[in-house]
Amino acid sequence: MKGSLIVVSAPSGAGKTTLCNAIIKSLDRIAFSISYTTRKPRAGEVDGVDYYFVDEEVFRQMIERNEFAEWANVHGNLYGTSKRFIEDLMDRRIDVLLDIDVQGAKQIKATYPEAILVFIMPPSFEELKKRLYTRGAENIEGRLKRALEEIREYYFYDYVIINDNLEKAIEGLRSIIISERLRVKRFEPQFIDRFYPVA
Amino acid sequence: MKGSLIVVSAPSGAGKTTLCNAIIKSLDRIAFSISYTTRKPRAGEVDGVDYYFVDEEVFRQMIERNEFAEWANVHGNLYGTSKRFIEDLMDRRIDVLLDIDVQGAKQIKATYPEAILVFIMPPSFEELKKRLYTRGAENIEGRLKRALEEIREYYFYDYVIINDNLEKAIEGLRSIIISERLRVKRFEPQFIDRFYPVA
Repeated sequence: MKGSLIVVSAPSGAGKTTLCNAIIKSLDRIAFSISYTTRKPRAGEVDGVDYYFVDEEVFRQMIERNEFAEWANVHGNLYGTSKRFIEDLMDRRIDVLLDIDVQGAKQIKATYPEAILVFIMPPSFEELKKRLYTRGAENIEGRLKRALEEIREYYFYDYVIINDNLEKAIEGLRSIIISERLRVKRFEPQFIDRFYPVA
Repeated sequence: MKGSLIVVSAPSGAGKTTLCNAIIKSLDRIAFSISYTTRKPRAGEVDGVDYYFVDEEVFRQMIERNEFAEWANVHGNLYGTSKRFIEDLMDRRIDVLLDIDVQGAKQIKATYPEAILVFIMPPSFEELKKRLYTRGAENIEGRLKRALEEIREYYFYDYVIINDNLEKAIEGLRSIIISERLRVKRFEPQFIDRFYPVA
């Protein structure tokens, strides 16, 4: 049975990155999707690890060849998820974790209706504000405004995790991924032929 | 949001009782369903804890009043799950764990289509046989024959857990229950009104 595709979205400051990193460490058979981008690498970023860094011409060709499961223009830089990249992992029975926004999640669901969509909900507006200030984030007003729009799209997702406690949120996301692996559609009937005599 | 109904079935010897007891201990907001039965209490069994012990006349009246979500006749004794019992718990936001066989699971699904059905699959016929002999179970031949019939009904369930490792099986069942609590249909929209300003 193929791996599954798990999309995780959250407003900026909801703790998504910490959560996703913890999940990748705590489970086997799961990997991050690595996006393509036209943005220039920042200090320390490695091609093929953090992103696949490509120029705009290559990216545009990939769009034309319909090679992206989703893509977006963020402040003039293009970011995209390669269908081949995630399908190769899934074919090798590896679950793929995709960290994208609400618009990207909608594109993924259109391409892969069986994708599992998880929304990370910050516990409150006050807490979100506090986290953004503590972190010294840029453009806090803009982020908060966007967060208010995004949280109202939760109903588009399959699961909602309120991130008021990191340990509980990690267990929640882990549980969603583990339970998905136990779905009856993932049980291989050959198991019975191998381990049981004919009734 | 109401609690959910989790039905766990397994062939005799699959380790279901150990698994369910571990789950009840490890999670909050979950309780076993307590069945009604016409069987006489065994030494140590307490009315209202192990079962509700009733006489056959009372049980038959309950059947007539359609008070059972499922019931069965096992070797001349009647066993049944009270709708009111499980609905009271669910109304109090408590998940209900129901330990019943394949026929019972089908009746439950007919009454409560939103019930989550979990099948515990022993890792192999040889292992099942070994466990039954080790345990000194009665009528091993009959149990094995029945097991072969039951495992072929797994496709009726929502999830299948292969119980080849107790710790992993516990984590699997825990994950199914936790993930069910995180489903978007269980998210209460009032959360947003309470903790976020109007966009």
